Amino acid sequence: MPAGSASTPGADPTAEPVWSVDPRTGERREQVGTEAAPGAVDAAVRAAHDARATLADRTVRSAFLRAVADELESARAELVAAADAETALGETRLNGELTRTCYQLRSFADTVDEGSFLDVIISHPDADATPPVPDLRRYKIPLGVVAVYSASNFPFAFSVAGGDTASAFAAGCPVVVKAHPDHPATSELTAAAVRRAAAGHQVPAGVLGLVHGFDAGVSLVRHPLVAAAGFTGSVRGGRALFDAAAARPVPIPFHGELGSLNPVLVTGAAAAERPEEIGSGLAASMTMGVGQFCVKPGLVLVPAGEPGDGLLKALGQSLADAGAGVMLDHRMRENFVAGVAERARLPHVEAPVRPGPGPDAHTVGPGFLTVPAAELARDEGAHAPLLEECFGPVTVVARYADPAEAEALLARLPGNLTATLHVSEQEADGTDGTAAGLLARLTALAGRVLVNAWPTGVAVAPAQHHGGPYPATTSTSTSVGSTAAERWLRPVAYQNTPDALLPPELRESNPLNLPRVVDGRREV
Amino acid sequence: MPAGSASTPGADPTAEPVWSVDPRTGERREQVGTEAAPGAVDAAVRAAHDARATLADRTVRSAFLRAVADELESARAELVAAADAETALGETRLNGELTRTCYQLRSFADTVDEGSFLDVIISHPDADATPPVPDLRRYKIPLGVVAVYSASNFPFAFSVAGGDTASAFAAGCPVVVKAHPDHPATSELTAAAVRRAAAGHQVPAGVLGLVHGFDAGVSLVRHPLVAAAGFTGSVRGGRALFDAAAARPVPIPFHGELGSLNPVLVTGAAAAERPEEIGSGLAASMTMGVGQFCVKPGLVLVPAGEPGDGLLKALGQSLADAGAGVMLDHRMRENFVAGVAERARLPHVEAPVRPGPGPDAHTVGPGFLTVPAAELARDEGAHAPLLEECFGPVTVVARYADPAEAEALLARLPGNLTATLHVSEQEADGTDGTAAGLLARLTALAGRVLVNAWPTGVAVAPAQHHGGPYPATTSTSTSVGSTAAERWLRPVAYQNTPDALLPPELRESNPLNLPRVVDGRREV
Repeated sequence: MPAGSASTPGADPTAEPVWSVDPRTGERREQVGTEAAPGAVDAAVRAAHDARATLADRTVRSAFLRAVADELESARAELVAAADAETALGETRLNGELTRTCYQLRSFADTVDEGSFLDVIISHPDADATPPVPDLRRYKIPLGVVAVYSASNFPFAFSVAGGDTASAFAAGCPVVVKAHPDHPATSELTAAAVRRAAAGHQVPAGVLGLVHGFDAGVSLVRHPLVAAAGFTGSVRGGRALFDAAAARPVPIPFHGELGSLNPVLVTGAAAAERPEEIGSGLAASMTMGVGQFCVKPGLVLVPAGEPGDGLLKALGQSLADAGAGVMLDHRMRENFVAGVAERARLPHVEAPVRPGPGPDAHTVGPGFLTVPAAELARDEGAHAPLLEECFGPVTVVARYADPAEAEALLARLPGNLTATLHVSEQEADGTDGTAAGLLARLTALAGRVLVNAWPTGVAVAPAQHHGGPYPATTSTSTSVGSTAAERWLRPVAYQNTPDALLPPELRESNPLNLPRVVDGRREV
Repeated sequence: MPAGSASTPGADPTAEPVWSVDPRTGERREQVGTEAAPGAVDAAVRAAHDARATLADRTVRSAFLRAVADELESARAELVAAADAETALGETRLNGELTRTCYQLRSFADTVDEGSFLDVIISHPDADATPPVPDLRRYKIPLGVVAVYSASNFPFAFSVAGGDTASAFAAGCPVVVKAHPDHPATSELTAAAVRRAAAGHQVPAGVLGLVHGFDAGVSLVRHPLVAAAGFTGSVRGGRALFDAAAARPVPIPFHGELGSLNPVLVTGAAAAERPEEIGSGLAASMTMGVGQFCVKPGLVLVPAGEPGDGLLKALGQSLADAGAGVMLDHRMRENFVAGVAERARLPHVEAPVRPGPGPDAHTVGPGFLTVPAAELARDEGAHAPLLEECFGPVTVVARYADPAEAEALLARLPGNLTATLHVSEQEADGTDGTAAGLLARLTALAGRVLVNAWPTGVAVAPAQHHGGPYPATTSTSTSVGSTAAERWLRPVAYQNTPDALLPPELRESNPLNLPRVVDGRREV
């Protein structure tokens, strides 16, 4: 790594090296700096803390966000090549992911300019109320430095300049990122692009810190000047950091996305109507990105008997066509192979198309397991692993004999990012109430509910919600969509404050032309 | 207590009795049931859980909220008498508090009817986006059963039918209240009024559970069917419950209001301009409710020298006029007397008007302590108690020699519910920038910032924010004002869902005429 990189201020020459590794071969590509010592974490957080004042100006924020998108676009070839070498996700997917990442940055710039997220509410005095209402003006202000923990599976969209970082910048919060060890070189290149954008807008380089190493991640969430954290990763790692955030002398909000089964329920009528379409659609969704999406359908409730058999036949054929893939790193590959083997050994579990090691030492092949829904619901303890996310191209198909068996299994599921319902054309028209009832049931389980669609592919849109009951997320917030910026803000109300002393956002004449609610009436 | 009270299903005759005590005499008035055994807590939570379906209908919710207000008004004489006998807060104050509580319930009914709190956002499909945007429709749904921990100092407004309960009902969440031991009889009477309102609207009585006892409170926050908690009380008790909420297998949101110093900064020019007005205003604010308000000004930065001396002289005179008062219970009185004595013993602390025991065994007298701001800022360790809330009619006056001393002390303060600035008429016009700078400094410390006013008296208004950096609150939310309902909701997005299967709130034709944002445009 270049000497004097901003990523590792105070780097210790004796510190652990950080390597970029090629998952297609398992070989080290290059050394990318060293793991951050506590002093380096502290320096990064303090530099971020000092960058708050510049970000307080919303025009600077939106221009900066757009400039980050522009810089990422300019560096596209280099970024995609680096990410492909480190993740094996392929240039097509990575180009799409980078486009999405830039779109997301620009969307947040629009959010900043539009101003609704400031949530300006004004109450004029009312002496007749009990107690009397004084002049009160409320909006939202940035929390402070945000710690962002990158995901393995989205080297752009959920990493250094991904949704957590973009939404934090939009909220006016500088960021220190804990890089994911699976793509340290991509992380450094992305951070450099962000800092070029910062330099072009007189934003201090400290607005984005980047640290490597497990211990650095723990130090980060404990740092007194870190005001909130965003995390995308595993239940184990996320829960440990959540616990550390809650145990601080001053606890901080921890918005973590930990794990999700993403259940799918196929009705008998749907299976009878579209067995091939649903089977092949499931195969495509569960193998997308080698099954390494947080919204991969990991548990599918399929009716027992003929229509369901046809669906599974189509699933198996499509999986055979899908072929083997390279996972993000060798540890994940080992976990996948071991996780499948553990699940396949459980009572009543079969493996019609067995997922596992691929044709060479670096690949894995997709497949699926089956289990009777009644067994899974009846003996939860013995089947616990089937109700936990297994990263990689595998799904568990639970066969149910009747709606009561399906319901009994749904009642045992943990929280999820998504839940999906496949219904027939006739059920979709809502006349008999079955589908609406199932949809209400699935709504209790997830933050996004789909009908006759697949959960992979998380659109960046104002109405998106990417979160769900624990362990899907540790809070009720979203990490995708314009409302994601809410996570890094807190309200403050000014009482009886002379207009000249108010922040311009709250002045009576509305000089910034912000959307606001005044005495219960919305002014757009 | 009446046999078969709904408050203590499964009450154990061997359980600890719960007594209503008169703080004016220290004597027991009557036995109000018993402490809830784990089985009783479980029964209350399950009954609340079963009441969710009824509350799902918004028209039921708003009618029920208004009916609760009506029932409380009808029971006003009985409620105020019971509360006065248990709290010694006086009938004038308690009548005002009950009026405020009813107004709050009706305000939340209006919030429910208006519907903005559902936060409906619709994104229509956009095939050209990367990734493509499907049809997405998002709104907010109730979290489930909410546990509410009542406050000692507001037997109506922050207790059984107070802001936490009202906002939870508004969000569609049933509630189980842990009664405060200082007013168990008032709690039972309030719960009975709520259940009369429920009965009148076909809402199950389980919509409001009520349990007594410390252990019951701990069981409640750990119950698997409890989805969120609201708390108003001390740092010690609140932090223990926050920790229990975070340590659950499935952690839940814990919205706690724990403690606040509520700093006040008086500029030299303000002290010179209005010494008597500020001194007497401070006396009135800090002694209101015998100093038992969460927003009592507990630390006042006053300039050293003549104008500040005049202010303190006026403060002392007003306190002498204020006279003694009865605190909420005898333990609080002991804590107050001990807390003042501990603080008065610290180095450089003086007590020009010493607060402490009143003329008889049940009262306390108001007063204030002084300390040089420079000493307090310099030796934080030795002075730590001065930076902690002391419940009761005492405030700490820190004298500062220059703005740098004031700033040094502000830099050491924990988070607060409020922070107040007193400036001169000339400073208030904002021309020299001093006041705006101080206001920005105070904004970092609190959730509500006041100018030339006093923090006691928390208005119920849409623009209100009652919360602040830890330990003021454990989350970024408010417990007063219409946005308080946000705490008990989570978003859910529906993707590609046929109109007939959507909840009516999200249908294309907007049959409920809800405010919503469609493709970035607000439809009111």
